[in-house]
Amino acid sequence: MSESKGALIAKSVQKHAGRAKEKLLQNLGKVDRTLDDIFEEHLQNFNRQHQQATRLQKEFNNYIRCIRAVQTASKSLMEAITEVYESGWSGHDLLYVQAQNMEMLWQDFSHKLGDQVLIPLNTYTNQFPEVRKKVEKRGRKLVDYDSQRHSFQNLQANAAKRRDDVKVTKGREQLEEAKRTYEVLNSELHDELPALYDSRVLFYVHNLQTLFSAEQLFHSESSKVFAELEAITDKLATECQRGSYTKRANNHALPAQNGNPPAPTDTVQSEYFIHYTILYATLY
Amino acid sequence: MSESKGALIAKSVQKHAGRAKEKLLQNLGKVDRTLDDIFEEHLQNFNRQHQQATRLQKEFNNYIRCIRAVQTASKSLMEAITEVYESGWSGHDLLYVQAQNMEMLWQDFSHKLGDQVLIPLNTYTNQFPEVRKKVEKRGRKLVDYDSQRHSFQNLQANAAKRRDDVKVTKGREQLEEAKRTYEVLNSELHDELPALYDSRVLFYVHNLQTLFSAEQLFHSESSKVFAELEAITDKLATECQRGSYTKRANNHALPAQNGNPPAPTDTVQSEYFIHYTILYATLY
Repeated sequence: MSESKGALIAKSVQKHAGRAKEKLLQNLGKVDRTLDDIFEEHLQNFNRQHQQATRLQKEFNNYIRCIRAVQTASKSLMEAITEVYESGWSGHDLLYVQAQNMEMLWQDFSHKLGDQVLIPLNTYTNQFPEVRKKVEKRGRKLVDYDSQRHSFQNLQANAAKRRDDVKVTKGREQLEEAKRTYEVLNSELHDELPALYDSRVLFYVHNLQTLFSAEQLFHSESSKVFAELEAITDKLATECQRGSYTKRANNHALPAQNGNPPAPTDTVQSEYFIHYTILYATLY
Repeated sequence: MSESKGALIAKSVQKHAGRAKEKLLQNLGKVDRTLDDIFEEHLQNFNRQHQQATRLQKEFNNYIRCIRAVQTASKSLMEAITEVYESGWSGHDLLYVQAQNMEMLWQDFSHKLGDQVLIPLNTYTNQFPEVRKKVEKRGRKLVDYDSQRHSFQNLQANAAKRRDDVKVTKGREQLEEAKRTYEVLNSELHDELPALYDSRVLFYVHNLQTLFSAEQLFHSESSKVFAELEAITDKLATECQRGSYTKRANNHALPAQNGNPPAPTDTVQSEYFIHYTILYATLY
C-alpha cells in the first residue's frame, strides 16, 4: 500500500514537473502554445461576471445588515415614543396601533430582502467557484496536450531516423488521449461559460425587480403609516394650543411647620411657562 | 491666606456635619421635618419627565446612527447595481439618475433627523441636570432651615429660664435668614418645575410632528423612486424575454495548432441556457 502511495506521489510530481517545464518553454518562446481567442473572450466575461456578482453580494449583505439594525432601532424608538406619549393625550391608542404597523412593515421588508433577494443572489454567486475549478482544469489539460504534442513531434523527428514504430504508435495514442481530455473540457466550457454569462441578464432582471418591488411596497406603506402618525400629532397640537394639556399649579406649598405661606407668584409662573413655550417655538 | 482657606474648610465641614446630624435626627423621628406634598408631586413629575426624555434621546441617537449606516450602505449598493446594470441594457441611464435621486433623499432625510429632531431633543434633555442641581440645593437649604428652627426652639426654651435676649435675637435672625434662603429656592422651583413639566407636551408635539413629517416625506418620495426603478427593470424584463440580450456563441474555438475543429454543439449549448433559465425561474 505504501508502495502504491509512493507511486502516486511520484506520478503527481512528474505531472507537475512536466507541466512546469512545458509552461517554461512556452513562456520562453521555445515551443508554440494552443491558442483559443473565443475561449479567452468567454473567460474575460466570466471573470467580470464573477467579480460583479461578488461585489453586489457583498454590498447587499451589508445593506441587509444595516436594514435589520434600523428595524430593531425603529422598534425601540417607537416604544420610547409610546412611553412619552401619555395615555391621557389624544390619539395615544392610535399611535400605539401605528407603531405596531410600522414594526410589521419592517419585519416583512427585511424578511423579503433576505428570502427573495439575498438567497437567490447567494445561489447565483455560489456557481462561480465550481466553474472556475473547471476552467483551471481545462488550463492544466491544455498544457498536457501541448506537452504531448511536442513530445510526439520530437518522437516523429527521431523515428524518421531510427524507424521506431512502436514508440511512435504509443506516442500517438498518448497524444490522442491528451487531446480528447482537453477537448471534452474545452467543448463543455465553450457551452457553459456563454450560457452562464447570458444567464446574468435574466438573473439580474428578476433579482432587481424583486428588490425594487419590495422597497417600493415598504416605502409606500410606511409613508401611509407616517401620514397617520402626523395626523395624530397634528390633532394633539391643536388641542395643546387650546391649552388642554397645561397643568399650571396655582397654589404654593404650605410648609407643614410654617403658618405663613409665601405670597402667590402666579405671574412668575406664567412668565416661566411663556419662556419655555418661546424656547421650543424658536427651536423649530 | 492659608488661615482663611482653613477657616473655609472648617466651615464647610461644620455645615455638612450639621446637616448630617439634622437628617439623622429627622430619620430617627427625634425632630419634625418640613413637608411639602405639592413639591413632592412636582418632583415626581420632573423625575419621570427626565427619565423619559433621556430614554427617547438614547433611542433616537441609536436610530439616527442606524439610519446613517443604511444611507451609506444604500449608496454602495446602488453603485454596485449600476455596475452590474450594463450600459447596453435598456434604461441604464435612467437607473443611474434614480440612484442619484435615492442618494439625495437619504441625505435630506438623515440631515433633517439630525438637525430638526435630534438637536432640539438634545436641547430639551440638557435642561434637566441644571434643574436637578437646583432641586438638590433646595433640599440642602431645607435641612438648614429645619436645623435652625430646632436650634431656635431649644434657645427659646433655655432663654425662658435664663432671660438671654441677645442670643435669642441672634438665633431669630439666623432662623429668618435660613427660612428666606429656602423659601426663595422653593418658590422658584414651585414655578419652574410645573412650567418645565407642562412644556413637555408642546415639545413632544413639535418634535414628533417634525420626525413623522420627515419620515412621511422620505418614504413617500422613496416609493416614487422605487416605482421608477421597477418600471426600468420591467422594461428590461420584457426585452429580455424577447431574447434581445442573449449572446449565444454559435461557433466553437478553432485551436490554432489543430486543423480539426470539434463538431458544433449548439444543441448542448442551448440545453445549458435552458438549464440556467429554469434555475433562475424556480428561484422566484
